[in-house]
Amino acid sequence: MAHRLIADVVDAGDTAVDATIGNGHDTLFLAGLVGPSGHVIGFDIQEQAIEQTRNRLGEAESVKLHLDSHGNMESYLAGEVKAVMFNLGYLPGGDQKIITVPDSTLSALKTATEHLSIHGVVTIVAYIGHEGGSDEALQVDQWAEALCADHYSVVRYEFTNRKNKAPYLIGIQRLA
Amino acid sequence: MAHRLIADVVDAGDTAVDATIGNGHDTLFLAGLVGPSGHVIGFDIQEQAIEQTRNRLGEAESVKLHLDSHGNMESYLAGEVKAVMFNLGYLPGGDQKIITVPDSTLSALKTATEHLSIHGVVTIVAYIGHEGGSDEALQVDQWAEALCADHYSVVRYEFTNRKNKAPYLIGIQRLA
Repeated sequence: MAHRLIADVVDAGDTAVDATIGNGHDTLFLAGLVGPSGHVIGFDIQEQAIEQTRNRLGEAESVKLHLDSHGNMESYLAGEVKAVMFNLGYLPGGDQKIITVPDSTLSALKTATEHLSIHGVVTIVAYIGHEGGSDEALQVDQWAEALCADHYSVVRYEFTNRKNKAPYLIGIQRLA
Repeated sequence: MAHRLIADVVDAGDTAVDATIGNGHDTLFLAGLVGPSGHVIGFDIQEQAIEQTRNRLGEAESVKLHLDSHGNMESYLAGEVKAVMFNLGYLPGGDQKIITVPDSTLSALKTATEHLSIHGVVTIVAYIGHEGGSDEALQVDQWAEALCADHYSVVRYEFTNRKNKAPYLIGIQRLA
């Protein structure tokens, strides 16, 4: 569903951000959408994530991967971006103690929404099964609910008949 | 979004149900998807809704409109259906006192999910701005959350940064 929201708005030549590279799945997806004339900027604080993804991408010059927190995203963005993807929590298959945390996540979300071009989309997949996950998700929810409805549309997609651990998706589109 | 969920699964020749004809918007949409070889079965308790929609449809033999409550849907369904659409609340432009109510809505939802073919989808747009709306929506939510996760996937789509009156969507897909 996150990919669907993103694919609806991202065109060849656009700039898109993977705020949490992780296994690189979203980075590759974004690189495919923006093509060689576009730009993908990725962030992860784990060397493992950057290396794995670099290997997968090959020599895609359109993609820049930064070994840095998404909390510092502001320093790397020059202009508008069409899409920013967040996968909160820990790196699948990695150290489950290394998780995204509310302070840097909220800072990155603020930067992401401010840099969003009109019709641009931010997606956030929030996991609540790990320690700290539900607190982070709650803070993200509250931040998103407070976004001005004249400028942003915020939609929450949630599986309601599963156990509590099912992740949910928040999609934010810039309207004006 | 409801149309998108439905269009993903409904093919020409399928049977689909408009549980709440209202202004006929969804009836026409379903008739277009199933085509002349398919079937659309519609329900509304207001003559006005049936007449307006019959006029819009013209001579589409694939569509049967019933002046009856969706609560009696069971009597009209012979086999499996691929999609069932619900728009709760009152008829736009009609008498705002005539609203869907929990008893018949829940009865219709039960019938709809039981008759759903594998991969089939039920959509429910729940309005909470009118009197009784939020109570009905709550009952629908609780019913949907209790559906067995092995057989049904239940997703709730909700605008979170608008005022309380924004409608939300529940999409139910039969998995097995």
